[in-house]
Amino acid sequence: MTNPYSDRENTSGSTLPIALIQQQYSQEQGKNIAANISAIRKAAQGGAKLVVLSELHTSLYFCQTHNYDNFELAEPIPGKTTDAFAAVAKQENIVLVTSLFERRSTAIYHNSAVVLDCDGSIAGIYRKMHIPDDPGYHEKFYFTPGDLGFEPIATSIGKLGVLICWDQWYPEAARLMTLAGAEILVYPTAIGWDPDDDKAEQQRQLEAWITIQRSHAIANGVPLISVNRVGFEKDLSKKTAGAQFWGNSFVVGAQGEFIARANNSDNTILYTKIDLQQNKQVRQIWPFMRDRRVDAYSGLTQRWLEKTITSNSTSTDKR
Amino acid sequence: MTNPYSDRENTSGSTLPIALIQQQYSQEQGKNIAANISAIRKAAQGGAKLVVLSELHTSLYFCQTHNYDNFELAEPIPGKTTDAFAAVAKQENIVLVTSLFERRSTAIYHNSAVVLDCDGSIAGIYRKMHIPDDPGYHEKFYFTPGDLGFEPIATSIGKLGVLICWDQWYPEAARLMTLAGAEILVYPTAIGWDPDDDKAEQQRQLEAWITIQRSHAIANGVPLISVNRVGFEKDLSKKTAGAQFWGNSFVVGAQGEFIARANNSDNTILYTKIDLQQNKQVRQIWPFMRDRRVDAYSGLTQRWLEKTITSNSTSTDKR
Repeated sequence: MTNPYSDRENTSGSTLPIALIQQQYSQEQGKNIAANISAIRKAAQGGAKLVVLSELHTSLYFCQTHNYDNFELAEPIPGKTTDAFAAVAKQENIVLVTSLFERRSTAIYHNSAVVLDCDGSIAGIYRKMHIPDDPGYHEKFYFTPGDLGFEPIATSIGKLGVLICWDQWYPEAARLMTLAGAEILVYPTAIGWDPDDDKAEQQRQLEAWITIQRSHAIANGVPLISVNRVGFEKDLSKKTAGAQFWGNSFVVGAQGEFIARANNSDNTILYTKIDLQQNKQVRQIWPFMRDRRVDAYSGLTQRWLEKTITSNSTSTDKR
Repeated sequence: MTNPYSDRENTSGSTLPIALIQQQYSQEQGKNIAANISAIRKAAQGGAKLVVLSELHTSLYFCQTHNYDNFELAEPIPGKTTDAFAAVAKQENIVLVTSLFERRSTAIYHNSAVVLDCDGSIAGIYRKMHIPDDPGYHEKFYFTPGDLGFEPIATSIGKLGVLICWDQWYPEAARLMTLAGAEILVYPTAIGWDPDDDKAEQQRQLEAWITIQRSHAIANGVPLISVNRVGFEKDLSKKTAGAQFWGNSFVVGAQGEFIARANNSDNTILYTKIDLQQNKQVRQIWPFMRDRRVDAYSGLTQRWLEKTITSNSTSTDKR
């Protein structure tokens, strides 16, 4: 195969070749995993050193409905699926970000990301901290909110700040990952349009999704990778018109500038490079961390600060 | 004059006609104030109910240099300048967001915003919390960081979350203002290009500035107004090539969508309307506040959380 990085800037010690796997998934878990592995191998053979998959990439996005049967999709970590991906990471000598429905016990389930290092070891896991629950996205039914906090995962290619989907709307999550040393923010995602929304609303949602993630790169002076699936998936409960997953997997640099972006419909391996030295220079011209008012941020741990007649002791501003 | 709102959607009880005053300023304070007042009157007579000026709109952006003489520009609040703007706010029956170099005493100076209500009273003041200090922006020399926290200012048209320039890079500031009840975020600003930077870098900076502010609207489900000056101002110390203030004053809705945007060079009164009901609907489809992990955010009050050999008790992660 031709080198997918050959038309990009010369490789230097400071750039990291990466690949994002944007794909449509089906009801057949075995077929999804085979497609994942085939794409990962192709990406690695193309030169990628970091490969990122989208959220819950071994199944349909099953959270469209409440269905006890879906708990059968959950797996322990480590388990059969992480073993399979670990073997590929080792064979291909890459760092691999995967995502799965974690069965921690028969009482506790999470929406988790597993990072596999190039020696096949589990570098670390992240359990999704912010859990949505909205029409078509019934995640609170399936997933207990994460309890591992916002801890970057150290790998042979750097510290990855892995967050998952709904986390992307929370500047707090990106900030905490960065304060804890993340060098790259990584968001496996499954987000789509409601076909019943008009085009203008769909465009606003897509742009908002991109904009807020770019802002995390800017606020924190780090590059960011976001990987979404594509394809239409029916809502079997028929309560919504289903989800048209909007792809648009993308990578931005530490100023929020686009480095690569996929379209909204195609199975794609998106190859690009991240400059790991850029953030040092960007943080010099924009030294935002220097001036954070940590003395005045205690209200961020409160639910709501507005002073009203119904305020109680937990929602009252303590400043 | 023709009605500047006539080509916009019909006025309803829920839309607020606003105007942003984007202008170039000169060394003559009297002339700047006269230009401000003339533009405010025109905006009000055009129907605006909320008028917002840019940062430090009565002078050149004097922070390009360290110069003791510039402290003569500072004024008390209330004072001659706030009195003049208060009289205009009352006469024109508008809410007016102004900005000035505050002399709190001969020992303490701030970069402050003063909000004047339509009865001519001071609705409230905000003292810039995050103070930059970079080539061409020597604000730490002039301004003590604000000590009033992130408190919205209640006015006859709603609660304004007024923040100033450098604050715009901090998601924490926008979040705290919103948690405390702000219905609109408002950013008087003075930001420009270094003429020595190439066009690509200038474009990245402008886009980052817009992107991060749009993200605050999205994260918090509130509309946002940002007002910048235009024009080139020399660096009298000759340490930099001066500042080409980039204008681009803009307004976005609660999904971060553009409602209005000025260009990068012209003196402009930017008329538009804000839908004060939109945020209720947007917050229903995107209930981000519901799912904040306030139990896991305590690290936000820390300077840095990375575990290193040099960590000490104040920078160690306490989770």
